[in-house]
Amino acid sequence: MICVYLESGAVGILHLPQPSRPEGFALIRLLLGGICNTDLELQRGYYGFAGTPGHEFVGEVVAADSVDLIGRRVVGEINLACGRCSWCQRGLSRHCPQRTVLGIVRHPGAFSEFLTLPERNLHVIPDSIPLEAAVFVEPLAAACEILDQVPSLPGSEVAVLGDGKLGLLVAQVLHAHGCRVQQFGKHAPKLAISAARGIATEVIGTELLPTAAFPYVVDATGSPAGLRAAVSMVEPTGTVILKSTVHGEVPVDTAPVIVNEITLVGSRCGRFEPALALLARGAVDVRPLVSERMKLSQAPAAFARAAEPGILKVLLQAD
Amino acid sequence: MICVYLESGAVGILHLPQPSRPEGFALIRLLLGGICNTDLELQRGYYGFAGTPGHEFVGEVVAADSVDLIGRRVVGEINLACGRCSWCQRGLSRHCPQRTVLGIVRHPGAFSEFLTLPERNLHVIPDSIPLEAAVFVEPLAAACEILDQVPSLPGSEVAVLGDGKLGLLVAQVLHAHGCRVQQFGKHAPKLAISAARGIATEVIGTELLPTAAFPYVVDATGSPAGLRAAVSMVEPTGTVILKSTVHGEVPVDTAPVIVNEITLVGSRCGRFEPALALLARGAVDVRPLVSERMKLSQAPAAFARAAEPGILKVLLQAD
Repeated sequence: MICVYLESGAVGILHLPQPSRPEGFALIRLLLGGICNTDLELQRGYYGFAGTPGHEFVGEVVAADSVDLIGRRVVGEINLACGRCSWCQRGLSRHCPQRTVLGIVRHPGAFSEFLTLPERNLHVIPDSIPLEAAVFVEPLAAACEILDQVPSLPGSEVAVLGDGKLGLLVAQVLHAHGCRVQQFGKHAPKLAISAARGIATEVIGTELLPTAAFPYVVDATGSPAGLRAAVSMVEPTGTVILKSTVHGEVPVDTAPVIVNEITLVGSRCGRFEPALALLARGAVDVRPLVSERMKLSQAPAAFARAAEPGILKVLLQAD
Repeated sequence: MICVYLESGAVGILHLPQPSRPEGFALIRLLLGGICNTDLELQRGYYGFAGTPGHEFVGEVVAADSVDLIGRRVVGEINLACGRCSWCQRGLSRHCPQRTVLGIVRHPGAFSEFLTLPERNLHVIPDSIPLEAAVFVEPLAAACEILDQVPSLPGSEVAVLGDGKLGLLVAQVLHAHGCRVQQFGKHAPKLAISAARGIATEVIGTELLPTAAFPYVVDATGSPAGLRAAVSMVEPTGTVILKSTVHGEVPVDTAPVIVNEITLVGSRCGRFEPALALLARGAVDVRPLVSERMKLSQAPAAFARAAEPGILKVLLQAD
């Protein structure tokens, strides 16, 4: 089978035998994968990653212990947890210290004709959700995670900083939950996707950003400057949600965080159920986020395309 | 009257007329003041401060609109709020954007024979609380603030980093609320104060600090390294409370905060009521924290003493 291979900054194509399916696992044929900024960071060699990347996917089950899964279209939670430790027992398997992570930590990723995942990680996609939408379930779940972590958010005023893929998903998810969202970004065409959903948007120009103006601010800029801007924009006693993974250390002035008693909430992956529910009832529209659709065998070009400025989601489909 | 004066790093003594008492304010004669690390930072000129410092005090009311206050021993909340803005209306006057702050922001401080504060800021001290304990109400309230911000704390395991004045108060306050506290510090004699109250303590030596080991960590180190250590010691999905005011920017690796979904809570001043209640029922013992008691006119020497390593609270009494 064809699969993508990353090592030391290079993207290549490998021909490998189809993976074997351990007990409790499903063998899945890739239908569509999505290139995420994390994949681009793995490519840049930030985490010493070598292997097959890809953690956003929709596929079809070709073999499984549970026969009713066979032939179904599925998405899959990316953390492979031990199922036995105290974290797993407390329902926090996404933080299992023994976990491997699909396409990120010691489990081959989804940018491959076939992949394996534990059956308990899989969610069957209802027929009403098209493939191009289903492939967004994983990042959409990461956006929904904010609501699990900060249950006081729905109905509130919130600033979303950043108009990249994750920022656009976060803005739509919060808007769908009754938040009064104001999204700040640098790219008018990207912000137009949010504006079309009725979200207030503002292109960051030469004017100063508002200070101490929002009870909640989500930093989805992906840049070290985002955290500083978020701390300055949030009201005293307010909450900043950190959705930007930034490589290396960020200089932070902790004095305003302490003086204004601000809470900073780190936020990563989320449960898939709320994301599937949002897609099923059409409360978010992810399709305008697709910039390009390329074949798995074109992965080197697809990765280069995904890294270009102005490009949103690049999808990979089986050849 | 005698008062302390700080400017550009120098501590001096001034003779000024007794301050006039605006309507709604009490005129207070100083009984005891406490030198706080913030005062030492003001002295170092970090905030361009010039004037009379001092925000930890106990005094006697000599004039007031409310005649029943006259002659009473009082402590006073340090934020002078406008009382009209939305923050004040919501009971968050400590964050009133128009506020002045006793001895810190545009209101002369308590290191003076006489000071003024709004009557609504005052709390009468019960006779059962000795003066040397009452002077700790303000920093003790700052320690209690953690419980208002993180109501899930009581009964939990918590690491307290730092064995300075604030770290010692935080450890006792949390211990008094049923937390299983483990305090980490560099000074065995200081940690002995906590140990005498039944708190588990550990002198930081050459061994590595435990990682991902506590659901809650309070950083009261006052050092830029404290935040990094706290983030490393807290469990995934855990909470770090920031009690260290550090001057300037701190390099923070936000990746573990995001990957482990850690919450960071900035924490400053607190309500006085819980602090008074703890002192009244003897649940904390602040007197071992007193290193020295000097006269107001000895303020230059007292500030120098307070800055020496190994010294805890230096108190100032009227001459």
